[in-house]
Amino acid sequence: MSFDLHRYLRRQTAAVDRALNRFLPPASAKPATIHRAMRYSIFAGGKRLRPALCLAAAEACGGTWDDALPLACAVECIHTYSLIHDDLPAMDNDDLRRGKPTNHKVFGEGIAILAGDALLTETFAIAAQCKGWPRYNHRDIILELAQAAGSKQLIAGQVADLEGEGKKIPASQLRYIHERKTSALLCCAVRLGGMSANCAPGQLQALTGFGYNIGLAFQIIDDILDVTQTSEQLGKTAGKDTAAKKATYPSIVGMEKSQKIAGQLTDRAFRALQIFSGKAPALEALAEFLLKRDR
Amino acid sequence: MSFDLHRYLRRQTAAVDRALNRFLPPASAKPATIHRAMRYSIFAGGKRLRPALCLAAAEACGGTWDDALPLACAVECIHTYSLIHDDLPAMDNDDLRRGKPTNHKVFGEGIAILAGDALLTETFAIAAQCKGWPRYNHRDIILELAQAAGSKQLIAGQVADLEGEGKKIPASQLRYIHERKTSALLCCAVRLGGMSANCAPGQLQALTGFGYNIGLAFQIIDDILDVTQTSEQLGKTAGKDTAAKKATYPSIVGMEKSQKIAGQLTDRAFRALQIFSGKAPALEALAEFLLKRDR
Repeated sequence: MSFDLHRYLRRQTAAVDRALNRFLPPASAKPATIHRAMRYSIFAGGKRLRPALCLAAAEACGGTWDDALPLACAVECIHTYSLIHDDLPAMDNDDLRRGKPTNHKVFGEGIAILAGDALLTETFAIAAQCKGWPRYNHRDIILELAQAAGSKQLIAGQVADLEGEGKKIPASQLRYIHERKTSALLCCAVRLGGMSANCAPGQLQALTGFGYNIGLAFQIIDDILDVTQTSEQLGKTAGKDTAAKKATYPSIVGMEKSQKIAGQLTDRAFRALQIFSGKAPALEALAEFLLKRDR
Repeated sequence: MSFDLHRYLRRQTAAVDRALNRFLPPASAKPATIHRAMRYSIFAGGKRLRPALCLAAAEACGGTWDDALPLACAVECIHTYSLIHDDLPAMDNDDLRRGKPTNHKVFGEGIAILAGDALLTETFAIAAQCKGWPRYNHRDIILELAQAAGSKQLIAGQVADLEGEGKKIPASQLRYIHERKTSALLCCAVRLGGMSANCAPGQLQALTGFGYNIGLAFQIIDDILDVTQTSEQLGKTAGKDTAAKKATYPSIVGMEKSQKIAGQLTDRAFRALQIFSGKAPALEALAEFLLKRDR
């Protein structure tokens, strides 16, 4: 049976965009500047990969998109806030994101910092609107998000990334960064999807393994594409890792071995899905798509 | 009956500091930089006014400090994050806070942005650890915090403040800024204190009126002190509102009228406390203290 991923992603993206539009204050809400800035980055044409994984995980566990949507949108708000702040001059100093000028290039640094802050705050307001489940209550959901986004995960990854710039770091430290900057939030997205379906503990464990491995694979491929693709193809500044002398998988273990590791991680992600006995076609298709993507 | 506010505040501050120390990751947690930066600003000698109001409100409604502490600490994390970000070069560009170099002066801009982000994230992890009450569940608590800190309140105030810099604004716009930059979080602090005591709706309404008025009075007095006191007395850069050509109550309505308005607001705050029939001595003493403070 073939799974039409592109059709599936279009339907998902439409549902996620509608939900984000409903959850976020309108652009006209006072003060308009901050709401325009928040919406500029949220609706800048991102791939909605994390919400897609969240909704697909919910489905795999017998849940519905409707129940998962507040959590999918919360994860996308965290992702977008982290991009806005990472792009700031004091961080990665990037002018281009998703083919458009970065938030601070359009709205100025002060508003960009505040737009990130506002999206991070909104994350928890949106997540709190989920219905809560017998196995996973509001407290569990909030803690899940706060831990993935917190100073030992997402933020720890950005700190280690900043501190490693221009230095020669071992592969183990690079994995530490990737696990936190990328894997943590992807893992959180699929876990929250499962939780929104009141999934069994074994299913949650399987989703955790899936999310962790797919997250690492995703970031290694990001490193590879940064070397092999142009800015036009990526919709963001290509070659910036090399320019910033950032450690990447290709720069530490070489291109061929990086490809191989990404493949192994994807295999492990697939094996984690065995518990679903073939009833997680969307998660499988997403994993395959992420490995073979070219942007 | 006289109420020994200073003794009360010392006991409260000790309890809040112990709780913050317990809730926040240790300074040694990896990566150490971010946890040192978070703790640097949290333990920089702030007055702990918002936690004090939260605990006192809990007491007024028959609750305990223990039940209110996660919420008091959550509010203090929001306050501290907002100070770190407000002090950044892209915002108010301030070098001195609570008598010490600001976070970005010590740790650099990138880490200061991330330390603010981490404290904002931690806010919700800490609040989620409250026990929840029959009238106010975890969802209510998280929404209360997210709204007070969000793009229509705290962040809206900072946006309007940034946009008003160097401009002549009417008194109504200045009130809009003060309501959001200061009143919203003080109001949230007392409301959460009441909620942690499972307070009756009438009590919550009284606390809302109290918090709103005391918050506005507090900010007007801040404006006044910025003109009348030295940096040494304030522990932060004095005269910076004038230097930044920021609109303040003294600059718009004059010093005498500013004092009078602050007094009227405090009177209104006192009247809101009548519902407690004299059984809110700590809230009364705090309000009086805030009006007469010199730093």
